[in-house]
Amino acid sequence: MSIVLNDAYYMQLALDIAAKASGQTDINPVVGCVIVKEGRIVGLGAHLKRGEGHAEVHALRMAGEQAEGATAYVTLEPCSHHGKTPPCCERLIEAKVSRVVVACTDPNPMVAGRGVKRLQEAGIDVEVGLLGDASERMNEKFNKFITTRKPFVTLKTAMTLDGKIAAKTGDSRYVSGPAAREQVHTLRHQHMGIMVGAQTALADDPELTTRLSVPAVHPARIIVDSKLRLPVTSRLFHNQDVPVIILTVKGAEEKRRAALEAAGAQVLACGDGEQVDLEIAMTKLGELEIGSILLEGGGKLNGAMLERGLIDKIMLFIAPKIIGGDAAPEAFSFGGFERMSEAIGLSGVTMEQVGDDYCLTGYPTYADR
Amino acid sequence: MSIVLNDAYYMQLALDIAAKASGQTDINPVVGCVIVKEGRIVGLGAHLKRGEGHAEVHALRMAGEQAEGATAYVTLEPCSHHGKTPPCCERLIEAKVSRVVVACTDPNPMVAGRGVKRLQEAGIDVEVGLLGDASERMNEKFNKFITTRKPFVTLKTAMTLDGKIAAKTGDSRYVSGPAAREQVHTLRHQHMGIMVGAQTALADDPELTTRLSVPAVHPARIIVDSKLRLPVTSRLFHNQDVPVIILTVKGAEEKRRAALEAAGAQVLACGDGEQVDLEIAMTKLGELEIGSILLEGGGKLNGAMLERGLIDKIMLFIAPKIIGGDAAPEAFSFGGFERMSEAIGLSGVTMEQVGDDYCLTGYPTYADR
Repeated sequence: MSIVLNDAYYMQLALDIAAKASGQTDINPVVGCVIVKEGRIVGLGAHLKRGEGHAEVHALRMAGEQAEGATAYVTLEPCSHHGKTPPCCERLIEAKVSRVVVACTDPNPMVAGRGVKRLQEAGIDVEVGLLGDASERMNEKFNKFITTRKPFVTLKTAMTLDGKIAAKTGDSRYVSGPAAREQVHTLRHQHMGIMVGAQTALADDPELTTRLSVPAVHPARIIVDSKLRLPVTSRLFHNQDVPVIILTVKGAEEKRRAALEAAGAQVLACGDGEQVDLEIAMTKLGELEIGSILLEGGGKLNGAMLERGLIDKIMLFIAPKIIGGDAAPEAFSFGGFERMSEAIGLSGVTMEQVGDDYCLTGYPTYADR
Repeated sequence: MSIVLNDAYYMQLALDIAAKASGQTDINPVVGCVIVKEGRIVGLGAHLKRGEGHAEVHALRMAGEQAEGATAYVTLEPCSHHGKTPPCCERLIEAKVSRVVVACTDPNPMVAGRGVKRLQEAGIDVEVGLLGDASERMNEKFNKFITTRKPFVTLKTAMTLDGKIAAKTGDSRYVSGPAAREQVHTLRHQHMGIMVGAQTALADDPELTTRLSVPAVHPARIIVDSKLRLPVTSRLFHNQDVPVIILTVKGAEEKRRAALEAAGAQVLACGDGEQVDLEIAMTKLGELEIGSILLEGGGKLNGAMLERGLIDKIMLFIAPKIIGGDAAPEAFSFGGFERMSEAIGLSGVTMEQVGDDYCLTGYPTYADR
């Protein structure tokens, strides 16, 4: 973060505003805007809800007439198309700002450079790229969805040093400490869906809601349940305001399906095999505008998703303890590779301390497969 | 590290000198000494080899007559007893230093405060405790051995994010990157013994020597081999200058034992069971003055040592990749615990980036068992 008064100083503020809105803009990106005139901030804004005002609009409204001749710092290229709101480029031009600093261009095929061009044509001085990497990472979920129409999948798991997510008895209370668990609930708030296997849903009977010291957004609960084993008495159905989506196969028992639908679930048939076809599942969830998914296992579902290259990001909470037990459940259960050189690597790896635990974050690289 | 000229500035130098000698003082502690007079360093010294001069002696010799009225910074309490060399306390008194700053007292029952007392009786101003934690940690191996006569055991393993030390085929080249592997060879230099299971010795036929860009000390090679399966053709016998110690059981085949001894190994019978009694093994290795051991697995030996509370320190090199395979060898293979709350925790945990890998270090806490 810049502590020197310069362009980065203001752009960082715009990024900070935007980042805190992560989780509340649906499939839209988070965007922040700061307007500065003669050494003072005159307007601040963020995109807060899909279908409502964009960051620039809020900031321009706050700035009022002071926007004339001002510099606008925007974390994402202003839009040039008429979507649910009028194009922000036109608003900036009308307000007569003299300079616009943009962190990164919008990967949305509807924008993709057109916004920058429109501003330049109107005689505004435009700079692109300041803190661009930070802005791109902040909207990594949006960036994937807008270009592929498939959800960005973040795998999250908490494991011991020996790679176990539970004791051999299944006991898993708790692998990680309170700070890590609080962060996981924040991750739920920041994703549109949370996905687990039927085995996890049956064993733990979880609500899969977001529980924090303040109210938060609840993601849709997505259960991979090829045999439709989830009972209608599941605690998932206690909160009818939050969707329950069950992924199954075409051949699943019709009676079970009807019962689950009656209980409030949306049931999607994904392929005609024995097991849910996870590629089809991602396409179908994308069609439902589930733009991002927090994958919370267990090990078999994690492994199956990883094997198929469907995981975009991995967040491992590593608890510094050893539980042992060769048969204790593992974070990733799949066939595995023959050679160590074939292992799936991660790029962009970071390690962060969270309470007494550590969180390793990275992006699987499937390129050579 | 202190960058302000004060007592800590000089003590840190004494610690730095000492730390670099780690691995070359046998069962002796590493010790550094800096002598300062009127704003200038006038003497530097470190204990470099068992049986030869102590840090204070080297530093006093460099200082010569300038030691009179000077301050001596010593990382460990000066000795008060006649060992292989005369007591350092007397040397400091003779040299007429006026002040001695000591990082920590010597846990050696032969010293244990007597050195400080002797200096004070001679009218020298003594301060104890400056950077004491750093000094104690630096000599953690010595501290255990001098008080228990049993080796300090550091478990080192390199594993993937899913806790595997090899692919399901056994292929393990390589789990971690070159920077981590270089650090492991430095760890070998810093321990008096390196211990592996017979399975590892058979599968990889390793030399278990210290290979670095400069010559280094080779630790004794210790093989846990209950059935004496190690062949006399093992590459371990290529270098006869470095001891090979084989741990086995009383009932081991006499002919095999004789053959291995003829090949140059020292064979120790540890208990009369089917498997090597690891507690007895530690006692016997201590009797041989093996003061520290780097335990390099495999998983079964790691697990057995951990279960018995025989591991003092754990260093896990975590490679950010996933290999998969439920049957792929794990870093810790043992029965394990029933409840997550029973897991063996680590204290004093640190995480450090090493090339593209991470190294987690900590001290297992067995207290509640």
